[in-house]
Amino acid sequence: MSDKVFDTPDAVEAAYVEAFQSGDPEAMMEVWADREDIVCTHPVAGPQQQGKKAVLEGWLSVFAREIDIQVLLVRVRRIRLGDTAVHCGEEHLVRTSDRALRGINNYTNVFTRTAKGWRLVAHHASPGRAVGTAGEPSAPPSVPPDPGSHLH
Amino acid sequence: MSDKVFDTPDAVEAAYVEAFQSGDPEAMMEVWADREDIVCTHPVAGPQQQGKKAVLEGWLSVFAREIDIQVLLVRVRRIRLGDTAVHCGEEHLVRTSDRALRGINNYTNVFTRTAKGWRLVAHHASPGRAVGTAGEPSAPPSVPPDPGSHLH
Repeated sequence: MSDKVFDTPDAVEAAYVEAFQSGDPEAMMEVWADREDIVCTHPVAGPQQQGKKAVLEGWLSVFAREIDIQVLLVRVRRIRLGDTAVHCGEEHLVRTSDRALRGINNYTNVFTRTAKGWRLVAHHASPGRAVGTAGEPSAPPSVPPDPGSHLH
Repeated sequence: MSDKVFDTPDAVEAAYVEAFQSGDPEAMMEVWADREDIVCTHPVAGPQQQGKKAVLEGWLSVFAREIDIQVLLVRVRRIRLGDTAVHCGEEHLVRTSDRALRGINNYTNVFTRTAKGWRLVAHHASPGRAVGTAGEPSAPPSVPPDPGSHLH
């Protein structure tokens, strides 16, 4: 496992976004806790993935499908429960080339504080509100509305 | 809030299933922690709901839509993190009248241990694998009898 130390759940989430955008499987797995009970749920309506191998394979499948994507985390709600943290929010998936908002996922992330900083133990993403839906103020105003599909 | 004490996350989840099936808003809210940062994410692609009032309203909307539904929790994976627990699995939504499997949701539940036992702090459900998908052994080969109603 990586020697990287994430001081906060937000730092884990930032590394998750970076790994997602760059399609980097190694960087993606660095954000996860080094345990076999981690679970990842993608919004593509397949089964959940448990364990490091299955979670990695899930992300490889995402990275094979998705390119040219910027990920913005929006409306992040943070629940702190001691050495566990839960973040719920929206992933806005934006096409890098023309800045079109392709889709909005709802997500729930669960983090645990380990000896080597915070790590992800569960990630659940699913199709969120339709692109162009009357948003709340926290939705990024710079992103143009565009009928999009849900993905990752 | 209720004086009910749930000794385990499983007990919370059983009460959640019961409340869901019976379409009982009061019983549903009893399973949630008495805090304003709780978040519920339904599989209907709308926005997430945060806070007791919003979570209740979300469930009222579910209960208005769904009747005659039995809920089975299948393939439950339990992650224990001290006084927090994370359960990931599938909700099998079964029509009570004819035992037809109407849908499968993936879910992630986050529980916290409070002074009054375990409570739910985050629930995220989303469309799972298609009904009839070649399942793993843990998929119910036929739906066992049990009373109930309702879905989300």
